[in-house]
Amino acid sequence: MYNAKIVDLNADVGESFGAYKIGMDEEVIKYISSANIACGLHAGDPVVMEKTINLAAEYGVGVGAHPGYPDLQGFGRRNMALSPAEVKAYVMYQIGAIMSFARAAGVRVVHVKPHGALYNIAAKDPSIALAIVEAIKAVDEELILLALAGSEMVKAARAAGLKVAQEVFADRAYNADGTLVARSKPGAVIHDPGTAIPRAVRMVTEGKVTAINGEEVSIEADSICVHGDNPQAIEFVRKLRKALEAAGVSIKPLVDVIQKF
Amino acid sequence: MYNAKIVDLNADVGESFGAYKIGMDEEVIKYISSANIACGLHAGDPVVMEKTINLAAEYGVGVGAHPGYPDLQGFGRRNMALSPAEVKAYVMYQIGAIMSFARAAGVRVVHVKPHGALYNIAAKDPSIALAIVEAIKAVDEELILLALAGSEMVKAARAAGLKVAQEVFADRAYNADGTLVARSKPGAVIHDPGTAIPRAVRMVTEGKVTAINGEEVSIEADSICVHGDNPQAIEFVRKLRKALEAAGVSIKPLVDVIQKF
Amino acid sequence: MYNAKIVDLNADVGESFGAYKIGMDEEVIKYISSANIACGLHAGDPVVMEKTINLAAEYGVGVGAHPGYPDLQGFGRRNMALSPAEVKAYVMYQIGAIMSFARAAGVRVVHVKPHGALYNIAAKDPSIALAIVEAIKAVDEELILLALAGSEMVKAARAAGLKVAQEVFADRAYNADGTLVARSKPGAVIHDPGTAIPRAVRMVTEGKVTAINGEEVSIEADSICVHGDNPQAIEFVRKLRKALEAAGVSIKPLVDVIQKF
Amino acid sequence: MYNAKIVDLNADVGESFGAYKIGMDEEVIKYISSANIACGLHAGDPVVMEKTINLAAEYGVGVGAHPGYPDLQGFGRRNMALSPAEVKAYVMYQIGAIMSFARAAGVRVVHVKPHGALYNIAAKDPSIALAIVEAIKAVDEELILLALAGSEMVKAARAAGLKVAQEVFADRAYNADGTLVARSKPGAVIHDPGTAIPRAVRMVTEGKVTAINGEEVSIEADSICVHGDNPQAIEFVRKLRKALEAAGVSIKPLVDVIQKF
Repeated sequence: MYNAKIVDLNADVGESFGAYKIGMDEEVIKYISSANIACGLHAGDPVVMEKTINLAAEYGVGVGAHPGYPDLQGFGRRNMALSPAEVKAYVMYQIGAIMSFARAAGVRVVHVKPHGALYNIAAKDPSIALAIVEAIKAVDEELILLALAGSEMVKAARAAGLKVAQEVFADRAYNADGTLVARSKPGAVIHDPGTAIPRAVRMVTEGKVTAINGEEVSIEADSICVHGDNPQAIEFVRKLRKALEAAGVSIKPLVDVIQKF
Repeated sequence: MYNAKIVDLNADVGESFGAYKIGMDEEVIKYISSANIACGLHAGDPVVMEKTINLAAEYGVGVGAHPGYPDLQGFGRRNMALSPAEVKAYVMYQIGAIMSFARAAGVRVVHVKPHGALYNIAAKDPSIALAIVEAIKAVDEELILLALAGSEMVKAARAAGLKVAQEVFADRAYNADGTLVARSKPGAVIHDPGTAIPRAVRMVTEGKVTAINGEEVSIEADSICVHGDNPQAIEFVRKLRKALEAAGVSIKPLVDVIQKF
Repeated sequence: MYNAKIVDLNADVGESFGAYKIGMDEEVIKYISSANIACGLHAGDPVVMEKTINLAAEYGVGVGAHPGYPDLQGFGRRNMALSPAEVKAYVMYQIGAIMSFARAAGVRVVHVKPHGALYNIAAKDPSIALAIVEAIKAVDEELILLALAGSEMVKAARAAGLKVAQEVFADRAYNADGTLVARSKPGAVIHDPGTAIPRAVRMVTEGKVTAINGEEVSIEADSICVHGDNPQAIEFVRKLRKALEAAGVSIKPLVDVIQKF
Repeated sequence: MYNAKIVDLNADVGESFGAYKIGMDEEVIKYISSANIACGLHAGDPVVMEKTINLAAEYGVGVGAHPGYPDLQGFGRRNMALSPAEVKAYVMYQIGAIMSFARAAGVRVVHVKPHGALYNIAAKDPSIALAIVEAIKAVDEELILLALAGSEMVKAARAAGLKVAQEVFADRAYNADGTLVARSKPGAVIHDPGTAIPRAVRMVTEGKVTAINGEEVSIEADSICVHGDNPQAIEFVRKLRKALEAAGVSIKPLVDVIQKF
């Protein structure tokens, strides 16, 4: 169901908090088509959210909620045993909060991408995936869930009739079943841009990726996740964008990529 | 501009947090026409917000955002020196968050009433009053600001063309200039229901209240603030409602009271 | 190694937070010999801690730190995937914080009992148990770890030469291997005081408990965990204390119970 | 009472929080003699505190608690209307927390320097100054309060028999009465190191500073406050240290500076 000709580039932004700065948002925003904006629980605060939405609006980048666990100290990266009912309420809360700033900026919240540990758990646990899908539908049925390609989130969204975009990672190794190789295993992260960039281009143009065991795996790439944490990351995004364009791929916001459904 | 025939009764609800319970929401909801729902910064959490909205929807009570300072430990009652830009962003954040739950419950957020120290500061400080008014307008121009009668908030709302409802307190003494007597002064709180109830009825039916110095003061009473913290408070609301109805006053949600404008 | 003649009664106290009240601390304190005082992360705040230490000092009750996860919204009852290094640092932080108030009150912090999900995880996970033991030793080698009888915490403490007191539950069913029956299973909680009280007395006087499958299990009961959340809980503690005394058991603070080692 | 021959250099460190980094602690620690370590309320977390204490211990730098308001989002820089009883409890809490890590690192907490808005309020409000002094004395009578020279904190400490060290600022203008020129006024901050450094040296060697109106003011400089936020700040500290040594001033930890009393 993927489209070889267009792809979205998404990055997490708006993760600063008060006096604490994280991320080169002003740089990465130039190269991406979708911005996942932290909503104040695992990162971000109301002042940062307002500023970040305005930045995204200025660059015409698609705006998404990036809800996470209520764990600022752990940056939302530590698993928390929340019930599905809690996850649903926390996700609704965060989507609503970002919507205020979007409305004020004259833009629409287009997608929702869960953050960190919540993303990872929801990729595997159908009850948490369902809670997220229900949260999104309860707030706005037009929202797109941006989720790990082939994950439980994708299944839950499809079963519920919610739009979903499948996300791939340029810098991560894949298992033969299409899941990501756990970060704890050797070779999980692909550090060399010379390897990662053509690999990402191929995921989009051919819908294929070579798994860690050498097998060829089919993958649907609606969106590629990139980072804006440091100068190397920015340089990577710039090059990836160039390589995609050179391969005839258009970079488009999620709303355009998903219209094909 | 007040209307002698109808008045709103509002109370703060949804102030529980996780395992911590505050307020007899299930009781007070039966007697009020507007619910100010805490939004997770000074009180409340996403699970509580969802539950409280559903309770308000069930009883047909008007739903309002009740934004406060980010100070759970102080229950939003301690002054904080936030800049107008911070206040604006924090209020937008909280209104948005509650809107998600309202949308899911099939109701509309009708009003915004600032909480505690934020309410008190905004009543006196034009820059903070303006920040709140701007926050509300940025999110939804149809929202009604519920504010201390005669306060800077009322002035800021009117100047900006925002709907505003004036709130009076049955159990508080007034100065001759229409402001509340500070809680630190003797006689600031009227503990006797036998005094407070007819006083509140008179504010609605005659638009008058006797100030602490004996002077007769004009007051506009669109809404009366009541409490649901304890059995005595519940009993007070029940009796006040009865006394208002006996005096020919209809209890109506804010949206009806303010339609007169 | 247990002593049939003396036992400690411990309860969690100081769990209120700001305007939020939990627990009938002033009642339960009369019947217990050890108080586990929340340290501000999962419950409690500095003002509550100071007040609670003073209450414990007034009643001559042994004072313990009750560290938990940094999750006020979940009351420390939701599992969090903290690393051992994080657990160690968080526990040290909380022990130190309560020690300030103990010093000011002229009492000594005698023991440390982990709270909620941290307690449950540490009972089973040796790396977390070890992190807690290391935290305690790093702060004060004389502290006693109060831990689930037979758990990984007990093993880790013994291996490290840290004093440990074994805790039993009057109102919980046991498996034949001495572990607690999971709350999710039928019969996990014993609601009838007429059953629970003689059962607790027998754990102390005979060192035996009947497991859920009918087997007789040996158990070491240095301390019995009781609750002070509601009037029924208070009544239970009062009766348990009476029944223990009637059986010739002395209720003594942990420091006396553990001196036997 | 100041000593022309020795002075302490203090800086705030340990202000990172989870994934958020602030400050070049590893650099500034080389040049200072006292480290004010954030205690987890306005900045810092338990993992950061442990790491920072170890860093200070490694460099032989004197360790101090740096308690602030419970306002991470505002970095403790926003005034909060806490009661003296609240301030006392919050400060005790924070001193205790850091003491755990000091004990584990084999060092002693030597001083307490309030942070940000708490420092500024305590410099002017005798009731808050007293609350801080009482908090310190309640925890450890040997602790030194590090406070704005000539402020209410200094007075409160002296009246209570608590050791106090007077702090001066190299980069801030002074009023003729010895108070700091408010940051909101022109000329409040001295940006040129060529002006600031000789000025700081003179405060130590002559006990004099030229006020903003040109008057010569007497000032006691037990410690000079420096910063480690950015490369320029580090360079400033390095040069200041060199200039002080060239003027015959020894840089010593507070415990040595204050022994003269």
